Amino acid sequence: MIATPYLLYLGHSNDEIGIKTSRGLAVFRPDICVGEYRHDDCGLTLGLPRMDFATAHAAGARTLVLGIANAGGRLDGEIVRDALAAMDAGFDIAAGLHQRLNAEPQLAAAAARLGRKLHDVRDPRPDIPVGNGQRRAGNRLLTVGTDCSVGKMYTTLCLARALATRGVSADFRATGQTGILIAGDGVPLDAVVADFISGAIEQISPDRHDGGWDLIEGQGSLFHPSFAGVSTGLLHGAQPDALVLCHDPLRRHMRGLPHYKPPGIAECIEANLQAARLTNPDVRMVGIALNTSAMEEAEAFALCARTAATFGLPCSDPYRMGVDAILDRLLAADAAPVRATANA
Amino acid sequence: MIATPYLLYLGHSNDEIGIKTSRGLAVFRPDICVGEYRHDDCGLTLGLPRMDFATAHAAGARTLVLGIANAGGRLDGEIVRDALAAMDAGFDIAAGLHQRLNAEPQLAAAAARLGRKLHDVRDPRPDIPVGNGQRRAGNRLLTVGTDCSVGKMYTTLCLARALATRGVSADFRATGQTGILIAGDGVPLDAVVADFISGAIEQISPDRHDGGWDLIEGQGSLFHPSFAGVSTGLLHGAQPDALVLCHDPLRRHMRGLPHYKPPGIAECIEANLQAARLTNPDVRMVGIALNTSAMEEAEAFALCARTAATFGLPCSDPYRMGVDAILDRLLAADAAPVRATANA
Repeated sequence: MIATPYLLYLGHSNDEIGIKTSRGLAVFRPDICVGEYRHDDCGLTLGLPRMDFATAHAAGARTLVLGIANAGGRLDGEIVRDALAAMDAGFDIAAGLHQRLNAEPQLAAAAARLGRKLHDVRDPRPDIPVGNGQRRAGNRLLTVGTDCSVGKMYTTLCLARALATRGVSADFRATGQTGILIAGDGVPLDAVVADFISGAIEQISPDRHDGGWDLIEGQGSLFHPSFAGVSTGLLHGAQPDALVLCHDPLRRHMRGLPHYKPPGIAECIEANLQAARLTNPDVRMVGIALNTSAMEEAEAFALCARTAATFGLPCSDPYRMGVDAILDRLLAADAAPVRATANA
Repeated sequence: MIATPYLLYLGHSNDEIGIKTSRGLAVFRPDICVGEYRHDDCGLTLGLPRMDFATAHAAGARTLVLGIANAGGRLDGEIVRDALAAMDAGFDIAAGLHQRLNAEPQLAAAAARLGRKLHDVRDPRPDIPVGNGQRRAGNRLLTVGTDCSVGKMYTTLCLARALATRGVSADFRATGQTGILIAGDGVPLDAVVADFISGAIEQISPDRHDGGWDLIEGQGSLFHPSFAGVSTGLLHGAQPDALVLCHDPLRRHMRGLPHYKPPGIAECIEANLQAARLTNPDVRMVGIALNTSAMEEAEAFALCARTAATFGLPCSDPYRMGVDAILDRLLAADAAPVRATANA
């Protein structure tokens, strides 16, 4: 577990895409974000108080999150200097950069000397088991997608928050770097060795007996030629009771692959249900989440209404319109008893 | 590439299962196996001449293959001593043990001093790309299975050999440890990081312009809850023109999972074709390979005939009956022109 609350690092960033991890934390977990650290030439802000390390530590922050991405995911000299200063001020450091914190000798030495922790959220834990497909107690929802980067993490977080608002116990189970920093725990699924994909998900979503829900962050798409293996293992390991399909209606081709068109929604629903039935024959699709961020409001609502009518499923942009209709469907479907042993 | 020919190591083994890698090499590549090395208390033989290291090296052998598995996949003291003696006699060493040759200081030091190579066939090469799904030139066949360990490697090797006998250029593309030792090259797919599964297959089966076939060794099963992610990425990376379904008719449950029944053949054919169409819309199922090793001959032939009639596909036990009917179907289907650009 990563100690919270966080101080979010922006450094010298002037590229909105480059700070998306810090942005995701500020948007979804303002309760654990004390402030932002940026240099004078940083033209961006998360809307949090700007703080130096001493001030932020005095305000309670415990981990400096290097929630930025630069070319090649490198730890450049300036980032290392800032991280060393933060450790001196009392901080642990967390990052999802390609170059590992623990592989940088100055950081490793300072961490050892000062008793600080370095969290490389791209490194899976070493004790991931092979999946066994055993039915686990409790309720699980997984977000799936027509493509990568269509809003699966945001949708999962919105569902978790909305369930909690209704008084239903719910935990977000993170499978990517930003999600792990948001949750303070999880597995970077893309970095797990192939034989352990489903086992990694079984590990982060064990038996649950409180009647609540594990909301598992999806990755990739069964229809993405580069990453469908990850999505398949995730689907089997999650053994979801419920799926929510996430889709970007303006996506023209599969992410990174101009020669592949996105699948149709009906085809994607059917393929995900079919694959999911292997480990949970009772799986149901309970909603469609559209990313309408690039659309006018009236157009976005009209599209969601049309999509709902076409597929007979609740449909909304979770971030813009909430997820009430999807939760109504989910909880209405939750009348079945918990099945702890039945299998295919 | 691993230097051939091989000397096959049996050590002190008295467990047939434990020598299955050495056995696979002796059966499928007798042409590159000079002899076997065993201690006096070894009760097993591959039917090859028993040789000491000096004799085998003089006979041309260049790599000692530690084709054995012991509990935990450890390099025990005796194996290390034998490997050191073999290196002194001029050998490179290859192994698929869990404990890496390169991680054993005595072996690494001797290899550096003597200029020998240590091949850990469980270690993927470091330059595997993310898959891109681009259509590649050439013909590809992939073996798929209803389960793990149903004969995919044997079937693939039989097909490669039979194609060569017919004068068709054919290359076996290995995806598992024994296969890699047989081919001298390949990728240990189960050890590849999840995001690179399909890219690993694209890398080992690149564009091919000679009109011949790449015969790609399958792994796992779309219906195995532990490993379907590997099978899915393999299917997409292979973009096969042809599939052969491998099946063990006596299998009562999925390997290692007593609570999962094997899928039906029809269901397994359809699921594999559907997933494979993502990267090759023209994929065809060209045959069924049954492992009948535990059946009487008449019973085995009758079962293959019934299976062929039921599914309208050639069916045989490749090892026992050859693969002529499957090859006839494959090559008859090979009338279509090579498609180098079309995609989904």
